[in-house]
Amino acid sequence: MIENPPPWPNGARCAVAFSFDVDADSVVHASHGANAVRMPHALAHMRYDPFVATPRLAKMFSEHGVPMTCFVPGWVAETYPAAVEAIVAHGNELGHHGHFHEWPSRQSPAQERESLERGSEALFRLSGKRPRGYRAPYYGLSDSTYDLLVELGLTYDSSLFADDVPILLETARGRLVELPVPASIDDYNQYVSSRAFDYLMKVSPPQQALDVYKAEFDALREFGGLWVACWHPAVSGRPAQALAIRRLIEHMQAQGDVWFATLGEIADHVNALVDAGRWTPRVEKIPFYSRPVIDLPA
Amino acid sequence: MIENPPPWPNGARCAVAFSFDVDADSVVHASHGANAVRMPHALAHMRYDPFVATPRLAKMFSEHGVPMTCFVPGWVAETYPAAVEAIVAHGNELGHHGHFHEWPSRQSPAQERESLERGSEALFRLSGKRPRGYRAPYYGLSDSTYDLLVELGLTYDSSLFADDVPILLETARGRLVELPVPASIDDYNQYVSSRAFDYLMKVSPPQQALDVYKAEFDALREFGGLWVACWHPAVSGRPAQALAIRRLIEHMQAQGDVWFATLGEIADHVNALVDAGRWTPRVEKIPFYSRPVIDLPA
Amino acid sequence: MIENPPPWPNGARCAVAFSFDVDADSVVHASHGANAVRMPHALAHMRYDPFVATPRLAKMFSEHGVPMTCFVPGWVAETYPAAVEAIVAHGNELGHHGHFHEWPSRQSPAQERESLERGSEALFRLSGKRPRGYRAPYYGLSDSTYDLLVELGLTYDSSLFADDVPILLETARGRLVELPVPASIDDYNQYVSSRAFDYLMKVSPPQQALDVYKAEFDALREFGGLWVACWHPAVSGRPAQALAIRRLIEHMQAQGDVWFATLGEIADHVNALVDAGRWTPRVEKIPFYSRPVIDLPA
Amino acid sequence: MIENPPPWPNGARCAVAFSFDVDADSVVHASHGANAVRMPHALAHMRYDPFVATPRLAKMFSEHGVPMTCFVPGWVAETYPAAVEAIVAHGNELGHHGHFHEWPSRQSPAQERESLERGSEALFRLSGKRPRGYRAPYYGLSDSTYDLLVELGLTYDSSLFADDVPILLETARGRLVELPVPASIDDYNQYVSSRAFDYLMKVSPPQQALDVYKAEFDALREFGGLWVACWHPAVSGRPAQALAIRRLIEHMQAQGDVWFATLGEIADHVNALVDAGRWTPRVEKIPFYSRPVIDLPA
Repeated sequence: MIENPPPWPNGARCAVAFSFDVDADSVVHASHGANAVRMPHALAHMRYDPFVATPRLAKMFSEHGVPMTCFVPGWVAETYPAAVEAIVAHGNELGHHGHFHEWPSRQSPAQERESLERGSEALFRLSGKRPRGYRAPYYGLSDSTYDLLVELGLTYDSSLFADDVPILLETARGRLVELPVPASIDDYNQYVSSRAFDYLMKVSPPQQALDVYKAEFDALREFGGLWVACWHPAVSGRPAQALAIRRLIEHMQAQGDVWFATLGEIADHVNALVDAGRWTPRVEKIPFYSRPVIDLPA
Repeated sequence: MIENPPPWPNGARCAVAFSFDVDADSVVHASHGANAVRMPHALAHMRYDPFVATPRLAKMFSEHGVPMTCFVPGWVAETYPAAVEAIVAHGNELGHHGHFHEWPSRQSPAQERESLERGSEALFRLSGKRPRGYRAPYYGLSDSTYDLLVELGLTYDSSLFADDVPILLETARGRLVELPVPASIDDYNQYVSSRAFDYLMKVSPPQQALDVYKAEFDALREFGGLWVACWHPAVSGRPAQALAIRRLIEHMQAQGDVWFATLGEIADHVNALVDAGRWTPRVEKIPFYSRPVIDLPA
Repeated sequence: MIENPPPWPNGARCAVAFSFDVDADSVVHASHGANAVRMPHALAHMRYDPFVATPRLAKMFSEHGVPMTCFVPGWVAETYPAAVEAIVAHGNELGHHGHFHEWPSRQSPAQERESLERGSEALFRLSGKRPRGYRAPYYGLSDSTYDLLVELGLTYDSSLFADDVPILLETARGRLVELPVPASIDDYNQYVSSRAFDYLMKVSPPQQALDVYKAEFDALREFGGLWVACWHPAVSGRPAQALAIRRLIEHMQAQGDVWFATLGEIADHVNALVDAGRWTPRVEKIPFYSRPVIDLPA
Repeated sequence: MIENPPPWPNGARCAVAFSFDVDADSVVHASHGANAVRMPHALAHMRYDPFVATPRLAKMFSEHGVPMTCFVPGWVAETYPAAVEAIVAHGNELGHHGHFHEWPSRQSPAQERESLERGSEALFRLSGKRPRGYRAPYYGLSDSTYDLLVELGLTYDSSLFADDVPILLETARGRLVELPVPASIDDYNQYVSSRAFDYLMKVSPPQQALDVYKAEFDALREFGGLWVACWHPAVSGRPAQALAIRRLIEHMQAQGDVWFATLGEIADHVNALVDAGRWTPRVEKIPFYSRPVIDLPA
């Protein structure tokens, strides 16, 4: 089904990256502004992330020898340094997720650049490394984002439902590796129901969420693709939900032919393949359009 | 349960048509106008359709010897000609789906006519044939649509949840065959969750979607009806979802008594039955009403 | 669990009434007014009811020897007399469901009275009988409804999620039997997804809907209660959904101790028990409140 | 998975508290103000709570020897004293749930204090005891709530999704025990679909709700945590839903190592552990923030 799957290291049949958006309560502030501090219920719901869930998941993944890729907004890293330390201590990757988790497409290019610089700086101060990959807060990419990422020297993005294998994004200023996420993999959709997040949705039994994730994995493994989780510790790091992840990891490990990697390692692998002429990914030129296709009346 | 099922060719017990709305990113432009080009996430989500999903599905259906009917907006055909070629190369039918995927009921009759003419022209230029059937973008039929379709010489429509077997639509200017879609068959409902499409919905495991589709098929087969999928490559052409379709095709083929056809072939069969006096379908006169039933205060 | 279940006829363990709101496209007109006639998709979706689903269900229930109670708006009866004849021909009960399916709580008392009189008159003209029971369109009871029902001589209402057994509604002008509906029994919730009805909801596999209905039945049977379906032919009278009902009927009949009845027969039974002093139902005085409990600022 | 579980009494592996918000129709008045009295359907839906469901659940839990914790708004206690008596008669705990079920974060501090005082007074008049624990109506805590609860002498709160074990809330005026609720445990999410409550949601089969609740319990038991139901009699006290609870209780009791307690007993246990220096819970300082994190333009 996948026309042109990349060769994965050591003959692995597919690649798996467990990535988490470590948002903590940044989303409450980003959505509700000054009013957020008067919303104790929503804040506590999300502070579960750095105080309970992120350390738990870091430990659980470490016990299974599986790496995580954690996209952490700069403000979250500054506010909850112990959670970031738990991520880094187990050898996981830190990725860029903006500074205050602002919606990029609602920012001016100057504001977006400032958020990207502050977020990167915050992760550097804590971990000694600058993030090499990006996931857009709210998946809310602007039409400036990719230019800015190239300009700031990032290697990859993981914000699109664009393909089942890595592709290249070619901007006027240079290229990025895009590591696409399956369209159905989000954990909010399975587990979150909250008016504060404008997200009233049915809560699934963990077994049903697992059926969704597992069906994606089984298919992508059969065809040689890339499986990327896009989850949130405050959501998937709770006890019953973490147990479901453990069952999924065990199912994946039982196959014996899966490459578990960080997104950074996968991006490096793709760039090495491309530079060596061993694999030619699909290329998307950015921007997709230089002018409007339809100009609806306002 | 079906009072007056048509005789199907070669004694088949029921008819099955897999139809897809090949929307690509036209729906993003049609819904968001000039702002669409500043929404890279939504665009990439839907560009998966022509670049990945449509060629994949065309190949998969071909391998099973089952035809597809693909409703393609004119702009999509012009923008992604390779996807249209993949459809046509495997002998599938191209159907009419407007030009820019505009909502017909929000157009003036003149605008709607222009969209219908441009859409038809675009498919003609690419395939050498004019489309013979229509599905309304967003199912958003106007009160002019059927008159326009007859005037433009189309043979059938497939936009209504009107019956379990074909019916005839009788307009002042002539007749159309209506090939109705089961009310529960839509794949957005099973798999899509997206704020950009104003469609926040729970994502199902593919097995649950398959249970919905299969229940419709099993019942329509038992009673001699017509089963029509109304799906979208960007949604159902992803790996786990395509595998679910493959399982459904195998279930249908295992019955041994199913007529797999394009909607055009089914419309021709209906017209032949009617002209030969071998079967009398139900007739709906269009318009349903010549004046308002209730005139609510604005 | 049920403290005071009524004695059911012939030692039956519980009572079952399959009631349907035969709305046809009245809901499209009632919700969209003059614009409804320009919505062919929504109209056809609901015209399936009188042309296909209602005759089908009437036949299917008759074959199983199980009666239906059909709440039909007056306008629907006038517009689709053949569907009403199919209902009556099999000995089913016609109930009152307004005239144009207007929302009662949005009408003045004079308008509501007029709708009730026209609706009753329409059913009388077609069937020779006046309806004895009422279900409020949209469950949208006004604070005048029960007074009007008593004044017009109706025997029962079936619009409340008030109890698991019949209760009495005591108004200043007289009493009504209330035959309550289980809160989770609605078929729109299981099967309908439609923007035109402002009802975007996940579509269930019929087996899942059946699990909901069956769980209610199994519990109400265990405790001696009353199970009332509140369904719609355009929704539940489609092939896969009708088959699910057939499976439910077979499950119920296999118990051997279920009283299948119309709501009118159940109301008569309740009144007979009460008049004979054999059973004392719970009484709700109408109105529930004579003045506001909280007066929020506008 | 749980880093620092508390020692539970008698070597129990986990603690379980079944808490119910006995809202009756207070939510209709709180949401719709003076218009609520003109909404008979919504009122009857919720009056099921005191007249049918609460006595039923009190009896069922008593038969299983399992205590309930019932959060009852003051107005509900005054309006339906028999329901409160049924709760108290079986030795269950009454908790504070405001007076009219007003949204605390929409009240001024003076209004919120008044509601807290009236609610407490009403429960005292009926039961002879003042409530020792609180659950915020709508989970809608204000930034004054915790200060007010300490000032009024309450011992615990149970309104946050903050952890999997008890934590301490430290305010400027003193401390409270927080007994957190699992984020996915709400019964509205599983069973309620109602426009009147602005809560159009898919209704689950009871077995699916049970799968959600049971997965939370199995995980929290495995790791030594606290499982707290947050349910509503009008929702979970209906026959099929009550049977699902009965199955859950039986599953829990079959483990043999579960401490079934009221939330008040659990809070006392936590305070005793802390005072004896036997266990050190996590502490959250209240308020979480003294000034806004982000000040969005209005």
